[in-house]
Amino acid sequence: MKFTVLFFVLLFCSLTLAQEDANATDIEINSQTQSACSPDMCDLLMKFGAIEEKLRVIETRLKDSETRLQDSETRLKDSETRLKDSETRLKDSENQIMDLRNKERTKVIFSAAVDGSGHIGPFNTDTTVIYGRVITNIGGAYGQYTGIFTAPVAGVYYFTIFYHAGGSHEGKLLLFKNHQLMIMTHDQPSDSDGADNGGNAVFLELQQGDQVYVRLPTNTHVWGTNYHTTFSGFLVSQI
Amino acid sequence: MKFTVLFFVLLFCSLTLAQEDANATDIEINSQTQSACSPDMCDLLMKFGAIEEKLRVIETRLKDSETRLQDSETRLKDSETRLKDSETRLKDSENQIMDLRNKERTKVIFSAAVDGSGHIGPFNTDTTVIYGRVITNIGGAYGQYTGIFTAPVAGVYYFTIFYHAGGSHEGKLLLFKNHQLMIMTHDQPSDSDGADNGGNAVFLELQQGDQVYVRLPTNTHVWGTNYHTTFSGFLVSQI
Amino acid sequence: MKFTVLFFVLLFCSLTLAQEDANATDIEINSQTQSACSPDMCDLLMKFGAIEEKLRVIETRLKDSETRLQDSETRLKDSETRLKDSETRLKDSENQIMDLRNKERTKVIFSAAVDGSGHIGPFNTDTTVIYGRVITNIGGAYGQYTGIFTAPVAGVYYFTIFYHAGGSHEGKLLLFKNHQLMIMTHDQPSDSDGADNGGNAVFLELQQGDQVYVRLPTNTHVWGTNYHTTFSGFLVSQI
Repeated sequence: MKFTVLFFVLLFCSLTLAQEDANATDIEINSQTQSACSPDMCDLLMKFGAIEEKLRVIETRLKDSETRLQDSETRLKDSETRLKDSETRLKDSENQIMDLRNKERTKVIFSAAVDGSGHIGPFNTDTTVIYGRVITNIGGAYGQYTGIFTAPVAGVYYFTIFYHAGGSHEGKLLLFKNHQLMIMTHDQPSDSDGADNGGNAVFLELQQGDQVYVRLPTNTHVWGTNYHTTFSGFLVSQI
Repeated sequence: MKFTVLFFVLLFCSLTLAQEDANATDIEINSQTQSACSPDMCDLLMKFGAIEEKLRVIETRLKDSETRLQDSETRLKDSETRLKDSETRLKDSENQIMDLRNKERTKVIFSAAVDGSGHIGPFNTDTTVIYGRVITNIGGAYGQYTGIFTAPVAGVYYFTIFYHAGGSHEGKLLLFKNHQLMIMTHDQPSDSDGADNGGNAVFLELQQGDQVYVRLPTNTHVWGTNYHTTFSGFLVSQI
Repeated sequence: MKFTVLFFVLLFCSLTLAQEDANATDIEINSQTQSACSPDMCDLLMKFGAIEEKLRVIETRLKDSETRLQDSETRLKDSETRLKDSETRLKDSENQIMDLRNKERTKVIFSAAVDGSGHIGPFNTDTTVIYGRVITNIGGAYGQYTGIFTAPVAGVYYFTIFYHAGGSHEGKLLLFKNHQLMIMTHDQPSDSDGADNGGNAVFLELQQGDQVYVRLPTNTHVWGTNYHTTFSGFLVSQI
């Protein structure tokens, strides 16, 4: 195509200015056309051919760039979709981690012993035992001055009580969830046996605000020194 | 280069049509060549120059675009690699979270008390104690009607038992893992002491399906009201 | 613009070679100029026009590509920013998961019973009870030959002890954290009551290396068979 055009155009050149010398140019063309046109026209034609060649190169490069761009756009679109998906999954993971961490951070653990000397009781009315010597109270759910544990979160909790008591009176402790008796421990009075021990334990499902405490019934007693008679509990698992 | 070509071409113009007037065009060219060619040829040459200029601009822009495209492709490749890596890590994190959540969700917690009035036993054969008053049974691993706890998953479990018994017979409870005695609690009969208390606790590694239960041996008894004699346990940690 | 140039150029053609026949070309141009130039010059001019058209197309495509490239670069930049953000969040999540998993993996759980026959004690000095029958010792924190539990990590731990003892001597056990008495259980000797039971439990905050053990005071005893007198504990929660 290029040489066809060149041929016709050079033919035109030779008709108008056939006597021109083409040696002035160092651009390589075939010897047949070299002497057929003026060097100026030849330059123009060659330049023209060079432009056409450049255009072809540019078109090829542009086509290539467009293809690569199209490919990049497709990959970018795919990456954006994957990124969006990853962000959604990451957010979900973060929420789950936050939930796990919150559960892990929610610590409710206490141990307390009755704090005194000699017997607690017997009293002439049922009495909530106040375990005044707080050994551990992570989360502060146990009330040192009330003896009442109040669930800070819904969950399953473990409670355990132990007592020691002299034998002259009945030793008896009742563990309540709100106003409901859950477990107890007691022993009969005995003149011949100097002392009694008892204990119990229970897992309880509690709602937030539920109260757990230990009652000493009328006319019973427990030993009140710092190390025998204890009340402990912890949050096993949030619901 | 451009002006050399222009010069030769315009020289050719002046040889063929030297009398033409070039004032019709407003494109600025040097005054020496302005009068050397016909306005039509000049237009063509200027147009030619403009095309060359356009080509140069296009080539520059194309080169720039190709560079930017190359850069974008590199960055895209890098992003894809990082995205792939993030997706792998995210998947791994999700699996770990799922594992943690499954462990957190696997709750096995129970408490039950014997459910009756007066004594359970003495019997003339060893008997599995059925703690019929279920207080808590998260995960349903404790069998209310069999007294048998069956581990739903492998793990370390905590078990604790407490009993109360009148003194007229021996009070005795044995805690078994499958057919193996693990811990016990008992007290001698006593005519002078009206009642006995006992308890024990143990952490046991269990495989899925392992059974834990409490046996009342021949000729022993425990007190059977709802609050004294209890059996509790929970899954501390999955293995 | 294009046709203006074409018009002037074709006018020039007609002045020099007016008798040429332009029917050889099938490229459509207006009938006025069709017969005004030589077919060679017309070819050149048409080719010129085609180049200009190609340039316009190329410029349009290049402009379009540049716009798309600009858009892609913006999106890529945005994706990189989001990816960077996701990577940061992912790293943070991984650290939190690692922390949770480490806590979940840090298992400290033990149960042991005294291992012998007949009574342990009475001794003429306070003695640390060695619970030689290790039932469970996940984490290896309990020393089978020393009777001493050493906290491997800071945390809140649960400990529980149970004992059985004949009535001829005082039964008594003291649970220490380092050198500090935390809880105890004991019963008076009794000639008329054949045996005594006792137990207690406590949650203790321990620092890494803190030691917890059980002491049998001077002139007291506990029953030493494998199943009655036990010492158990577990890590409830790392601090």
